[in-house]
Amino acid sequence: MNISPLQKARYSYVPKLPEGISGSIDDIAVEKGCPTESISDKEEIRKIFKNTYGKPLVTFKKAENQNNTQIHRELKVGVILSGGQAPGGHNVIAGLFDGLKKGNPNSTLYGFKGGPGGLTDNKTIVLTEEIINEYRNTGGFDIIGSGRTKIESDEQFAASLETAKKLNLDAVVVIGGDDSNTNAALLAEYFLANGSNTQVIGCPKTIDGDLKNEHIETSFGFDTACKTYSEVIGNLCRDTNSAKKYWHFIKLMGRSASHIALECALQTQPNICLISEEVEAEAMSLDQIVEQICTSIVKRADNGDNFGVVLIPEGLVEFIPEIKKLIIELNDSMADGADEFAKLTEFCEQTNWLSKKLTSASFEIFKSLPADIAGQFLMDRDPHGNVQVSRIETEKLLLGMVEKKLSILKEAKKYNGKFSALTHFFGYEGRCAFPSNFDSDYCYSLGYSAFVLISCGLTGYLSSVKNLTAPAAKWTAGGVPLTMMMNLEQRHGSKKPVIKKALVELDGKPFKSFAEKRVTWAEKTCFLFPGAIQYFGPTEVCDAPTITLKLEKEV
Amino acid sequence: MNISPLQKARYSYVPKLPEGISGSIDDIAVEKGCPTESISDKEEIRKIFKNTYGKPLVTFKKAENQNNTQIHRELKVGVILSGGQAPGGHNVIAGLFDGLKKGNPNSTLYGFKGGPGGLTDNKTIVLTEEIINEYRNTGGFDIIGSGRTKIESDEQFAASLETAKKLNLDAVVVIGGDDSNTNAALLAEYFLANGSNTQVIGCPKTIDGDLKNEHIETSFGFDTACKTYSEVIGNLCRDTNSAKKYWHFIKLMGRSASHIALECALQTQPNICLISEEVEAEAMSLDQIVEQICTSIVKRADNGDNFGVVLIPEGLVEFIPEIKKLIIELNDSMADGADEFAKLTEFCEQTNWLSKKLTSASFEIFKSLPADIAGQFLMDRDPHGNVQVSRIETEKLLLGMVEKKLSILKEAKKYNGKFSALTHFFGYEGRCAFPSNFDSDYCYSLGYSAFVLISCGLTGYLSSVKNLTAPAAKWTAGGVPLTMMMNLEQRHGSKKPVIKKALVELDGKPFKSFAEKRVTWAEKTCFLFPGAIQYFGPTEVCDAPTITLKLEKEV
Repeated sequence: MNISPLQKARYSYVPKLPEGISGSIDDIAVEKGCPTESISDKEEIRKIFKNTYGKPLVTFKKAENQNNTQIHRELKVGVILSGGQAPGGHNVIAGLFDGLKKGNPNSTLYGFKGGPGGLTDNKTIVLTEEIINEYRNTGGFDIIGSGRTKIESDEQFAASLETAKKLNLDAVVVIGGDDSNTNAALLAEYFLANGSNTQVIGCPKTIDGDLKNEHIETSFGFDTACKTYSEVIGNLCRDTNSAKKYWHFIKLMGRSASHIALECALQTQPNICLISEEVEAEAMSLDQIVEQICTSIVKRADNGDNFGVVLIPEGLVEFIPEIKKLIIELNDSMADGADEFAKLTEFCEQTNWLSKKLTSASFEIFKSLPADIAGQFLMDRDPHGNVQVSRIETEKLLLGMVEKKLSILKEAKKYNGKFSALTHFFGYEGRCAFPSNFDSDYCYSLGYSAFVLISCGLTGYLSSVKNLTAPAAKWTAGGVPLTMMMNLEQRHGSKKPVIKKALVELDGKPFKSFAEKRVTWAEKTCFLFPGAIQYFGPTEVCDAPTITLKLEKEV
Repeated sequence: MNISPLQKARYSYVPKLPEGISGSIDDIAVEKGCPTESISDKEEIRKIFKNTYGKPLVTFKKAENQNNTQIHRELKVGVILSGGQAPGGHNVIAGLFDGLKKGNPNSTLYGFKGGPGGLTDNKTIVLTEEIINEYRNTGGFDIIGSGRTKIESDEQFAASLETAKKLNLDAVVVIGGDDSNTNAALLAEYFLANGSNTQVIGCPKTIDGDLKNEHIETSFGFDTACKTYSEVIGNLCRDTNSAKKYWHFIKLMGRSASHIALECALQTQPNICLISEEVEAEAMSLDQIVEQICTSIVKRADNGDNFGVVLIPEGLVEFIPEIKKLIIELNDSMADGADEFAKLTEFCEQTNWLSKKLTSASFEIFKSLPADIAGQFLMDRDPHGNVQVSRIETEKLLLGMVEKKLSILKEAKKYNGKFSALTHFFGYEGRCAFPSNFDSDYCYSLGYSAFVLISCGLTGYLSSVKNLTAPAAKWTAGGVPLTMMMNLEQRHGSKKPVIKKALVELDGKPFKSFAEKRVTWAEKTCFLFPGAIQYFGPTEVCDAPTITLKLEKEV
């Protein structure tokens, strides 16, 4: 196989394991805590998860000669990669595989192909040592592919059970985000309720960083993705600090939460970083956001610095109350008047039609948008009739409005700089990078820990590795009952049990640390240049976790 | 100073020097060759460069006890960073500084601020050890800034001479691309013709890779920039190979030459890579290019692969003969009828106006373009009245036309795939990355060698380091007379002496190697994932030069 020199070199990297699960598997002791409760809506959630609710937290400790014969059982396990790619997925599978084979060389690991659909449709490959070795410490989900099918209907649960029976599966491991793990919990419950012994174990994946809580310190992939974005953002910072003539407006992936933007801001110290959660909490208007950016541009121009960097989270527009309202009104009007709207081919006709449908406040906002961007609000809806926010070029929207405001300021003699700007969107570039040493170790540990959870006969658990700011040997591995992280939320018209998404906390240390410094950053040039992810150098360069994680763990 | 862990670690990297200039500076022997000639137009160029034409090639060799007292002279040297940023510029300055100080600790290095304008306007800072140490092995040109002023008018030459006199300069070192080095040659000649002893030495910079020839194996920055782009392209390859649902259309910096696109293709093996030079040589039409892309999409769809990667060089449109013609006609029409055109505010009015101005062939092409992209051909002209090609979103242009053609193929039942695509532009991200070990060593050597050329009293030379595919100790340092690389070319209505730009040679090894494999790449998935630039790992990962350079140097 023709592979890159780095890929070849990464094959020989040996991921570090937490002490509790390193060494001989005969020395792993399983400590169980007290029964647990969900974070809220306890009674409702207990009813939904009759068989899996209230299980204890589990921790693995090193203790000699446990003589755990269970761990040497011959097992058949299937693994699923669910949803968007995140660096380290291959290492979760490698850790799981190595654990299984260490337990019993005759154990089998099936890979479900193309995401959860592989389970319902029974599309598998048997993962061999030879296959696994081609993917160790590499990025991507290409070992078995991923998919966005959600296992949530009765038919899908039944089909999954059918597959589990056919393959005689002891367990299914679901590597996914909050939604996929919610569905993993439901599947675990379904299996037990239907007399199946197939266990279900989840692993916390998402570059967005929004699957975290008291028991999950971070989701895997966040580290690598943020470092990859920070590399290129830092390069743009250095470029503009050299050429001194451009403002870079950079949109970053992250539909709901702004963890990525915040982490990248902490790593690169741009002039402006918008945080969706703050915009919503402060009920900021689009005009206020534009004002904030312009204030920085004007101040810097007064200092002779006609350049800078602005970070924008992908999902921002939905967090601006007036735009959120506009989007809802647009969705409703375009759904109600779908036939009428479809006949309007010109933008001016569409605008005219909307003037009669939208509230006057929303219509004013709509008219204030640059025309090409306003058009993006009217593009094809998703299957639920919603505007596809990821297709709105928020970075160009803000740039267009900033340009407008600057020209007003210039006429009023309140701004005398030169303004030239470039826009960027970084997202897909970070989802399949070679996992950082942190993600390589963390993911391998999560996979290995998933194996230990399976061998203990547990189901409805999320594999968990904690104390992540310490060296890997000091990490602790174990499992968290999935129901423990749940609450009820409104989804498509009814209350559903879901794992609570972690948004940026405005009173959390990462945001506060950012908020303390941003006034200076907005005016001065304080850029940091993190450079490319390093896999081989000094430990302070290669093994540091994200700044977010470090700040969150600080006492 | 608050700096990143990588930046701190890179400060302690010690760049490697070619043996000929390593060790004691008392042991550097200077070998001169025979008188040289320009590559063509010898008589004309000799006339223009009366004082600097015909100088010999110079090579530095290690030889003990040369007792070259010249090398210990106290010197005053000024250095300029000219044009677009390229990784390694800081190391050229560091090498020059270290050489100067080794020769005589009392020597002074001035940095001209903000590019060549710093020389004409006498804006300098004295570069101290303390300043230099903050920039060793880092990216960017922020140590003194860069600029695009071209020193080419009599007033500018006179002002430069004035500055050289005021500062009592022994030499000026110009770090720049082909144009800047052409002007460096003219400045060297001007100084001598006007009785000044200030020497002028150039250094070959440009990420575009188009400043190379028999004597210059590569320009600095090309290595790092291509590796940075290949990192993110490889990540996108891996992402799409995992998600299996997107085509990525990626535009890459490189206005004239397609070296960057070609090198990135060799490093990542995308499905399609367009090479401007081939498009021009084959006189390909826009439709043929679209056809080529669609053929790959259709074949891959037949294999069940509805995903892929297309690389597009930034300057492509100017190499498509029919588009080149269209652009010329547009430039002319819009210049001749500037007042009329300025009054037309709607795109349909503009189109109508153009229907009377353009030849029918060009108008047909114009009409065939997606409307939003066609509009970009009508945007503000540059100061010379030309369309700003870098502002045309060629990646979206091709995508729009590919979508159109695919829908025709679908109707004709010749295509039955799903097509969903994303566009990207990578350019600014690569210009200021931390220089690779290759560029760190190469640039430091170029700067050090520039010092030796100065100490020898030479002027009108380009610092040169060769044999670059060998380990650095085996490199050879020396100087190439700038006039030797010149020919006459038509520029703004008259023949001017210029350093010949190196375009991709269609019978050269890099292109041939690509051409051999691309048929397979277009149909199969052969992606390579180079990953992030590594500075500390195994030598095959950290120190390999570009594939282009390796292939060009292969016997």
